[in-house]
Amino acid sequence: MAQQKKMVEEITSMDEDFAKWYTDVVKKAELCEYTSVKGCMVIRPYGYAIWENIQHIMDSMFKATGHENVCMPMFIPESLLEKEKDHVEGFAPEVAWVTHGGSEKLEERLCVRPTSETLFCEHYANIVHSYRDLPKLYNQWVSVVRWEKTTRPFLRTREFLWQEGHTIHATAEEAQEETIRMLNVYAEFCEKYLAMPVVKGVKTAKERFAGAEDTYTIEALMHDGKALQSGTSHYFGDGFAKAFDIQFTGKDNKLHHPFQTSWGTTTRLIGAIIMTHGDDNGLVLPPAVAPIQLVIIPIASHKEGVLDKANELKNKLANVCRVKLDDSDNSAGWKFAEYEMKGVPLRLEIGPKDIENNRCVVVRRDNGEKIFVSLDELETKIPELLEAVRDGLYQKAVDRRAAMTFTARDYAELKDIADNKPGFIKAMWCGDRECEDKLKDELGITSRCIPFEQEHLGDTCVCCGKPAKHMLYWGKAY
Amino acid sequence: MAQQKKMVEEITSMDEDFAKWYTDVVKKAELCEYTSVKGCMVIRPYGYAIWENIQHIMDSMFKATGHENVCMPMFIPESLLEKEKDHVEGFAPEVAWVTHGGSEKLEERLCVRPTSETLFCEHYANIVHSYRDLPKLYNQWVSVVRWEKTTRPFLRTREFLWQEGHTIHATAEEAQEETIRMLNVYAEFCEKYLAMPVVKGVKTAKERFAGAEDTYTIEALMHDGKALQSGTSHYFGDGFAKAFDIQFTGKDNKLHHPFQTSWGTTTRLIGAIIMTHGDDNGLVLPPAVAPIQLVIIPIASHKEGVLDKANELKNKLANVCRVKLDDSDNSAGWKFAEYEMKGVPLRLEIGPKDIENNRCVVVRRDNGEKIFVSLDELETKIPELLEAVRDGLYQKAVDRRAAMTFTARDYAELKDIADNKPGFIKAMWCGDRECEDKLKDELGITSRCIPFEQEHLGDTCVCCGKPAKHMLYWGKAY
Repeated sequence: MAQQKKMVEEITSMDEDFAKWYTDVVKKAELCEYTSVKGCMVIRPYGYAIWENIQHIMDSMFKATGHENVCMPMFIPESLLEKEKDHVEGFAPEVAWVTHGGSEKLEERLCVRPTSETLFCEHYANIVHSYRDLPKLYNQWVSVVRWEKTTRPFLRTREFLWQEGHTIHATAEEAQEETIRMLNVYAEFCEKYLAMPVVKGVKTAKERFAGAEDTYTIEALMHDGKALQSGTSHYFGDGFAKAFDIQFTGKDNKLHHPFQTSWGTTTRLIGAIIMTHGDDNGLVLPPAVAPIQLVIIPIASHKEGVLDKANELKNKLANVCRVKLDDSDNSAGWKFAEYEMKGVPLRLEIGPKDIENNRCVVVRRDNGEKIFVSLDELETKIPELLEAVRDGLYQKAVDRRAAMTFTARDYAELKDIADNKPGFIKAMWCGDRECEDKLKDELGITSRCIPFEQEHLGDTCVCCGKPAKHMLYWGKAY
Repeated sequence: MAQQKKMVEEITSMDEDFAKWYTDVVKKAELCEYTSVKGCMVIRPYGYAIWENIQHIMDSMFKATGHENVCMPMFIPESLLEKEKDHVEGFAPEVAWVTHGGSEKLEERLCVRPTSETLFCEHYANIVHSYRDLPKLYNQWVSVVRWEKTTRPFLRTREFLWQEGHTIHATAEEAQEETIRMLNVYAEFCEKYLAMPVVKGVKTAKERFAGAEDTYTIEALMHDGKALQSGTSHYFGDGFAKAFDIQFTGKDNKLHHPFQTSWGTTTRLIGAIIMTHGDDNGLVLPPAVAPIQLVIIPIASHKEGVLDKANELKNKLANVCRVKLDDSDNSAGWKFAEYEMKGVPLRLEIGPKDIENNRCVVVRRDNGEKIFVSLDELETKIPELLEAVRDGLYQKAVDRRAAMTFTARDYAELKDIADNKPGFIKAMWCGDRECEDKLKDELGITSRCIPFEQEHLGDTCVCCGKPAKHMLYWGKAY
């Protein structure tokens, strides 16, 4: 128990210092480690296994919607980056520049991709000639680099892992449908597999991706009331196609510019998981992406038959979940704390008494509930319990978000909420950027999105009093 | 047939110009495409799907031998790269240097990783403290950059995809065992899944990896008689540990330096597949990594029932292999040429006559054999035929290698073979680098490896006549 206590004490409490709690968790749960390059991290085995599970599920969803994986180079020549005016303005200030190969100075600087629209466009210009070549529905799993000033593990790093989908279509309608389709894939992934509710909506012009006509987003609410943009999907119209001279011969035998989209999610999702489900005992992982879904801890394992039985259960359960047996010398108490810290969804305890009664104890990480399960029913019961953990986590997150979503009908109310109540703020907006700038300056909040599900909260903008166009979600954001 | 002819004509014949045949195949089979950055390529969906299959199988083999995946940053500070003297000497001349982040000059240059020993060492120094922390058996799937002068798709590119294993152990014996274990994993992978025979051996000191005490290799022989180094496994001793100050407290309660290994394979394996199995009709893919293992081509598909039956077969076969039905408007002849070009291992033809007789025709890509198969037996027969294709490819490659492996007993014989007979040359060697240098200068051949399976071909070095120490494989290499 001494060791258990010590371990738990090592994490700062969430209420005391949420930022410190976060870094404690990523470090103690061995998700990542700093390196000597600021903002670049080592993703350790336990953290990378979460990412592999995310990749595996999401990749299946991409393939089920007709997408193919490709791999573009990591370098973009400066002249290529510059082809689309808005795009280069948005990204040039934060790219890493390669100037030398070995001891030779390069004729043209290359940037390490911050995103790959320009590379995909160059490729599409090469391979798209006829309407028969369309659509191309491509995705890649790579890392990108953005030279951020302020960095935090998983949330904002100079290099991060992500997937970027890039598609090209014969018509605007098709491209627009794709943009929404992929936003829905992201939302489904977050809600079903990460047990994380999200608000779907469109970004304001100010918050749009550099070069996009529309940027759609899913916004999640973290434990501390701050918003986290968890995935974005962009509709480009034919702007990039025109800048990069991509044309195809249509069925009408004339030349047309095609229409494009891109969409991305990143290792930030691991940060989202931590800050949505975590608690003062550490990480709490949604079962679908947990590297270990159930840990078996033998009780009084020196007693005859206990380890044999634990091994038997492990082999049996390996067919229905990702299971680990910890038969190390550490005390049961130490192990309890360790796997709580690591967010393992279910813990199974088996000791001499349990064996006698042909049962075991299963403890849920999400709510601490202890359940006696007959050993004969384990293989059906464990998948049900994993599903119950997912549902429990989801419901808890939905309830918290509901409790932390506020409505502001005038500026005074908005200011009071912004100053005192962390969370989403719903309010009417006139559509002008001036109001966004003002609220950011005065209250420190930014527009998160114009949600698809609109509510009528009044007729005038909460900021300037002019006629309102949309209901908007506001918040402080990561 | 007009279209079929046209397609096939587009590939240069192997005998006419092997290098041109190679680039024709990678381009026409849509494996990759050039970009505006020399030596950096787009890996297209069909090429990337081969890589995904390679990754999937190899990753399982790594996990089955106890390895875990991690992800290191892509940047190495110059001072970190310089910590191990031999290592930096080997790699510094060919790295890409990042000098600016956005508009600001960096205080210290960062190189884009050419390999990640230094990053793993920095990490190990942070996380390894006690014998209880050992071994660490890590691997990562990333891309690396080496600023090569001469580049060729898949074979030598400035950026390439690879996996790099990095392990650290308490004893030299354990690390040495690991080095050989992973070489054997590579050899098994190549032989079983790529149907490509390899020679296992150790590199001479001259050909060693920069910083290694020993470099082991698997060497394959391509269709044109040139050798291709297909995977390497390095034993580092405690050299890196000393340079990076990695120490652990042993069971004896004293501080020790641990022992390390690294091992890697790359997208070069796709080049190896092309040049081992390909022919004048295009690519020939080993079934285990073929994106499409069987293509169904309906014959006279306008006739009633043909497309229905083809679809029925597709759904049935989807349970036993990666199957595609091509029900497009293209002629059957065009389709035959197209999927031959793409190296699909099996083609299934189904037409009205076949349906009447409750059978279909299956054609093997490796030898053109046509087999009538009863529709009732398809689900057992197809996996057998895929296995037969693998065996056929392997045997053909083994036979070709045998026919292209020569023995030289003196310099005159060696010179005659090197000048006139492409292939491996087995010859005795004194162990001196001078002879390696001389043979490279005079005959253009390099030492491939000292094979594990030694033969006694004489008592003296084929080059200098001094007493021989080893039998060596020589060859011209990619």
